[in-house]
Amino acid sequence: MKQVLIYDTTLRDGMQGENICFSPEEKVKIAQKLDDMGIHYIEGGWPGSNPSAVRFFDLIKDVKFKCAKIAAFGSTRRANTRAREDRNLQALVKCGAPVVTIFGKSWNLHVEKIMNNTAEENLAMIEESIVFLIGEKREVIYDAEHFFDGFIADPDYAIATLKAAIKGGCKTLVLCDTNGGTLPHELEKITRTVTATMEQTYDFPVQIGIHTHNDIGMAVANAITAVRAGAGMVQGTINGYGERCGNADLTSIIPILALKMDSPCVSPENLKKLLPLSRFVSETANMTPLNSRPFVGKSAFTHKGGIHVSAVMKQSCAYEHMDPSLVGNKRRVLVSEQSGKSNVLYKAKEMGLDLGPDDAFSQNIISAIKELEEDGYQFDVAEGSLKIIMEKLSEQYESHFELESFRVSIEKNRDQPCYAHATIKIRVGDTFEITAAEGDGPVSALDNALRKALTKIYPTISDMHLIDFKVRVIEGSGSTDSKVRVLIESRDENNIFSTIGVSEDIIEASWQALADSFQYKLALDKENSV
Amino acid sequence: MKQVLIYDTTLRDGMQGENICFSPEEKVKIAQKLDDMGIHYIEGGWPGSNPSAVRFFDLIKDVKFKCAKIAAFGSTRRANTRAREDRNLQALVKCGAPVVTIFGKSWNLHVEKIMNNTAEENLAMIEESIVFLIGEKREVIYDAEHFFDGFIADPDYAIATLKAAIKGGCKTLVLCDTNGGTLPHELEKITRTVTATMEQTYDFPVQIGIHTHNDIGMAVANAITAVRAGAGMVQGTINGYGERCGNADLTSIIPILALKMDSPCVSPENLKKLLPLSRFVSETANMTPLNSRPFVGKSAFTHKGGIHVSAVMKQSCAYEHMDPSLVGNKRRVLVSEQSGKSNVLYKAKEMGLDLGPDDAFSQNIISAIKELEEDGYQFDVAEGSLKIIMEKLSEQYESHFELESFRVSIEKNRDQPCYAHATIKIRVGDTFEITAAEGDGPVSALDNALRKALTKIYPTISDMHLIDFKVRVIEGSGSTDSKVRVLIESRDENNIFSTIGVSEDIIEASWQALADSFQYKLALDKENSV
Repeated sequence: MKQVLIYDTTLRDGMQGENICFSPEEKVKIAQKLDDMGIHYIEGGWPGSNPSAVRFFDLIKDVKFKCAKIAAFGSTRRANTRAREDRNLQALVKCGAPVVTIFGKSWNLHVEKIMNNTAEENLAMIEESIVFLIGEKREVIYDAEHFFDGFIADPDYAIATLKAAIKGGCKTLVLCDTNGGTLPHELEKITRTVTATMEQTYDFPVQIGIHTHNDIGMAVANAITAVRAGAGMVQGTINGYGERCGNADLTSIIPILALKMDSPCVSPENLKKLLPLSRFVSETANMTPLNSRPFVGKSAFTHKGGIHVSAVMKQSCAYEHMDPSLVGNKRRVLVSEQSGKSNVLYKAKEMGLDLGPDDAFSQNIISAIKELEEDGYQFDVAEGSLKIIMEKLSEQYESHFELESFRVSIEKNRDQPCYAHATIKIRVGDTFEITAAEGDGPVSALDNALRKALTKIYPTISDMHLIDFKVRVIEGSGSTDSKVRVLIESRDENNIFSTIGVSEDIIEASWQALADSFQYKLALDKENSV
Repeated sequence: MKQVLIYDTTLRDGMQGENICFSPEEKVKIAQKLDDMGIHYIEGGWPGSNPSAVRFFDLIKDVKFKCAKIAAFGSTRRANTRAREDRNLQALVKCGAPVVTIFGKSWNLHVEKIMNNTAEENLAMIEESIVFLIGEKREVIYDAEHFFDGFIADPDYAIATLKAAIKGGCKTLVLCDTNGGTLPHELEKITRTVTATMEQTYDFPVQIGIHTHNDIGMAVANAITAVRAGAGMVQGTINGYGERCGNADLTSIIPILALKMDSPCVSPENLKKLLPLSRFVSETANMTPLNSRPFVGKSAFTHKGGIHVSAVMKQSCAYEHMDPSLVGNKRRVLVSEQSGKSNVLYKAKEMGLDLGPDDAFSQNIISAIKELEEDGYQFDVAEGSLKIIMEKLSEQYESHFELESFRVSIEKNRDQPCYAHATIKIRVGDTFEITAAEGDGPVSALDNALRKALTKIYPTISDMHLIDFKVRVIEGSGSTDSKVRVLIESRDENNIFSTIGVSEDIIEASWQALADSFQYKLALDKENSV
């Protein structure tokens, strides 16, 4: 089967999703991951509609991409104006993106009842906007909004809008199921009609794309159906984020095309990055990853039933439709004492810990981890803290400093900003250090004070930096007394490590994670100096 | 189109989902809701595999149902035994359910490689188990496990297993996509072959059913496709709960059949109970309801983009594929960076604010919201703070208290837990209040102190409680200096309201959200007292 082009709109249509918001800087990082995965087009935003999109296009100009092209999104010109005088079209050109995707109306109801426009002027808007953009040397993609609803209402007019885009010079037409209510068999019939019409009408190839929404749970099915009916480009978002019920989920579409339909849209090597990409986007959006998400969810290859587990051990295909490692995922078997122990042994070996021939240590570790995870700790994302706990429970832990005490105070006067400072006293062997620092908020003040105290004794601490600090409230039924989980990611020149703290008090939780991160760093330095 | 029978397996296959667990009593309550919705079959559990399923069947005997039939689930007899001596089959009869659904193997690989059985004995197991159950006066449904994988591997053998079930006396055969990896076009072809074969072979009607899993995101599409290919029964679960990526979601399938395919499997009146049913099941399972779930999610008919909102206000079909009230849901409009004047006007009207005939206020509001959202505020989830800002910018805001100052301190000594306390001074008119309080962490201490100070002046504050407190770090590139967004949800006797704060300092951000929540509450009380 021919290669299908993947067009990602996480950074534009994905951001229409409730609670989904990315800063321009976060969008750049996501774009780099998408490029690294081998995505062909990355839609970055609508420069004519908001200033943060403009900032993204400014930032992205300096970024080198391996394969992805950056696209800006916007509408056709307003009615009864000139394309070159249209502010939205000007913004699309000015943002500097090499690809411009513009959407226009396909549905006579929309044109007449909502836009109060005429059928003819709508066709002119499509054609002239494209002529203008192509004159500005942009690659143009045309999104035919509400195409399927429009086709059902008036097929001739819907087709006429596509022909207007082609007349303007556009050769990539994306059929959009904007309301997300079209059934696959209807969508297939209409897509086949369009591809056949294009083949009959033009002596050059017209690329058909598909853009679907999940309002009846069919976004992925519809996208795949359209590919079978001749579409060569699929628009979607990572994790299916998007308005209402979301867009077509590329984390399903990419592996379906690659593994089930012999259409390798990305390389097998890149396909393994699918799970990390999905996690990166959900982390950046601070959305809890959906465990049941096909292919990339934590539960996607998880077996609970005893019959299933023993069958899978004999033949994985018994209850797995594919090898999970192909998309970077793995099989999980829900905890029995036995599987717990082999996991712990596996992990200890990975960390270079010797748990000895005796079972006692690993049994202690299993039960401690179970208890802590019930309290809200999560060690699969905090291996720094996991290592420290495993060392403590196997009597191999060496502490590099002890807390004597700290005090953090925050002051606020009327509408002045808050002011935070911290004093801290630590002990290293027989040496005591007491010092103070300020910061942007209490955790920052505490971090600065601890760092200042430790640097005097351990100068290598200055290599170490916090790179991420995440707070999540657990036990949703909360109030300010609910538990808080703090995750800290730190790095030095050669390593990145994550640590965790959980408490009803955010300062206590932050302290646990901070203290672990410094202990972990000092242990690393000691290993390396040996 | 003919009526499709709905077979719910939330209480059996749904419970295979990670983190899904219902007690027998909870299962009875869910069964009653399912019956009330007009579901035709309710599968309650596998009595041969666990004792809590047996308890469910005991409890359910005393419950009267309007239309639903209760089914028990189990496997065919073991190899080389007699059906009447098989403990699993005995348990199925003993549990007293009028319908028994048994599953058998369709896939030669499974029969030979995993069961170490022969093809012939497998056929005998299917036939004889059914003969036994029918002899016990049970209605029998046969689930053909792995039917599609089996058909692809050896179509003749897969069909032979179905014929064995019919020979045993069963007239309802359910084709199962057990591993969930089958594409709709393959599933359609196979289902059509089966229905045609049955019509050609037998002079009595054979009911074909479909049971699908969501491992490639196709569970709903596959179920609907099978109905179009002749299936007259759909098995699925509420909210799609189930092992790995879940089962076919009945909260999508039922409205698709009823509203999009002219197959009214439940009455229009019952269809309106779909959202409450979905919520009841997620509440009982203690699973957060998925906002983006088709038809029943909180976001399913939620509009964020300004263009969408103004269009929907003219013609709902512009961006809604159906009337949300048909499934018990409703339209929501969010005010956010991307939204335009129409969202603001819609919201102002909803909040009872008069923005006047002039455009100036709404323009100010739109640009202020855009600016604040660039700073990390998110008003679509904080309507309390949104109202306060809209009031401020339209010169209708009345402050109920002013902060003079606060001090928060946190102390920690060695491995003792943190201790936090706060002092606060506020002004109401010419009255000053200064007080102090402690709490589980700095925010809780500040909340308690403010509450204590305000209650002296406004006693109704004691009706108000924090119910949720969410923290997220924005601008992922963080360190402890990155910005923090705090969202607070509060309630009094009659209202729930959300407020927001953003700052580099978590205490500053929490203060903003806290202060807004108290101001909002006091404004509500004033409105109500007028």
